[in-house]
Amino acid sequence: MINPNDELLAAATHAASLGGDVLMRYWRDGVQMRDKSENGGKTYDLVSDADVESENAIANYLRSEFPTHEILGEEGQVGSVDAEHLWVIDPLDGTNNYAHHVPHFAVSIAYYHRGEAVVGVVLNPVRQEQYTAVRGGGANFTGTPIQVDTATSLSKTLIGCGFYYDRGAMMRSTLAAVEEFFGNDIHGIRRFGTASLDLCQVAIGQFGGFFEYELSPWDFAAGALIVTEAGGKITDAMGQPLTLAKTSVVASNSHLHEDMISITSRHHPQNA
Amino acid sequence: MINPNDELLAAATHAASLGGDVLMRYWRDGVQMRDKSENGGKTYDLVSDADVESENAIANYLRSEFPTHEILGEEGQVGSVDAEHLWVIDPLDGTNNYAHHVPHFAVSIAYYHRGEAVVGVVLNPVRQEQYTAVRGGGANFTGTPIQVDTATSLSKTLIGCGFYYDRGAMMRSTLAAVEEFFGNDIHGIRRFGTASLDLCQVAIGQFGGFFEYELSPWDFAAGALIVTEAGGKITDAMGQPLTLAKTSVVASNSHLHEDMISITSRHHPQNA
Repeated sequence: MINPNDELLAAATHAASLGGDVLMRYWRDGVQMRDKSENGGKTYDLVSDADVESENAIANYLRSEFPTHEILGEEGQVGSVDAEHLWVIDPLDGTNNYAHHVPHFAVSIAYYHRGEAVVGVVLNPVRQEQYTAVRGGGANFTGTPIQVDTATSLSKTLIGCGFYYDRGAMMRSTLAAVEEFFGNDIHGIRRFGTASLDLCQVAIGQFGGFFEYELSPWDFAAGALIVTEAGGKITDAMGQPLTLAKTSVVASNSHLHEDMISITSRHHPQNA
Repeated sequence: MINPNDELLAAATHAASLGGDVLMRYWRDGVQMRDKSENGGKTYDLVSDADVESENAIANYLRSEFPTHEILGEEGQVGSVDAEHLWVIDPLDGTNNYAHHVPHFAVSIAYYHRGEAVVGVVLNPVRQEQYTAVRGGGANFTGTPIQVDTATSLSKTLIGCGFYYDRGAMMRSTLAAVEEFFGNDIHGIRRFGTASLDLCQVAIGQFGGFFEYELSPWDFAAGALIVTEAGGKITDAMGQPLTLAKTSVVASNSHLHEDMISITSRHHPQNA
């Protein structure tokens, strides 16, 4: 008997590859355009086209395979977060990296059943690197099982962070939290610019933890499952369970979670 | 007639590949060790071995090819910065990434003639990505000519930064400068953790600029030439010419240099 979750994983993986193909086509065109353009002013139109076309490719495929399922996506898909069958998709996570030709961005695809994560796929199409997870089945990196880091002290780790788009209180809170992480003698802070991949970098043990004070559900829907299936923990910045809403996010290797929350909660924009 | 600089470039490229081979051998062993080790406590010994063995491989090769040349390196080579012929080598830039298995680190090799940069090579051996430059000959990325970004406003760019190892005044200065960059509405801040590659990311146009309040000469000796040969500019954080000493570093696409210095100088630890 085929496990139905494996079918969903296969569909998620295929959906991610369709989105990735769109992104790679514009990525190559973009190189040409940037060479020709005097000020690069068209870069963002290009990104916007890539975003929308990637989402359409993914959504069209999922609708044809699963006509009764709902879809929630960054570029206009408005499925309900408590639907019986919900796909949560980010057709291009790491827009700024993509626009500036930094080869670190991703397609993120998750399947949720009545609000519970069942399948997650995060694909970096430039690197052809793919992280996957199925509930109860562990997490994988391009086919190999992965696990979070074993560190039990922040002083043994790299910590990833993100700034979302805010340039006010949230940005200052993030910098204050970064300073306190440094005060805990971490090996270093990292800011790579793609939340879904940041979460995967926790899952594979590169980062002891990651935090960001605001993310949208499509940024973390897949990565959250990949983190937990790799043995990690993910909550909001106050330590509360995540929901599929705009929220703060803290992920860790589990051992470090309490230490991370004590820092992220203290500097939370609502408490700062 | 063969251009003597081309011979030096070929030697630098070969030296980088020798170092890269050492790093990749330990990188693969490290994966195995981390899987077996309960707490990962041996990771740093491993890194230290890789560092030293990489530098020895590079230095032995350069000495056999150029017996009269001096060598300045992170792991104990003590050539004089104003030597007639000086190789400046970092056998492993991005130690923390390497230790945490983040595939973003580099070997950096530069040749200086009486204090002037002539050849620079930065190799990321995991990605098999190599940046090179020869004075007056432009900069290349794995064989293709590269140029800095054309942006004339910070608000169109990503800015890279680094924190070196300081956790005191220099760290706070860096965070204050980051906050002011955000205030200039940059697209985002990036902290990838490998200075030599950060400089190359300026050279190839991914970052509009990069700053760090303290670096050692081997961190920037090659990258500095790659930036300038790609059309960029590099100085210290006060806007003064770089020397092969421990120093602050600001690199940009040239157009943004004044704007960057106005921020980095104001927050310089000596002025803060």
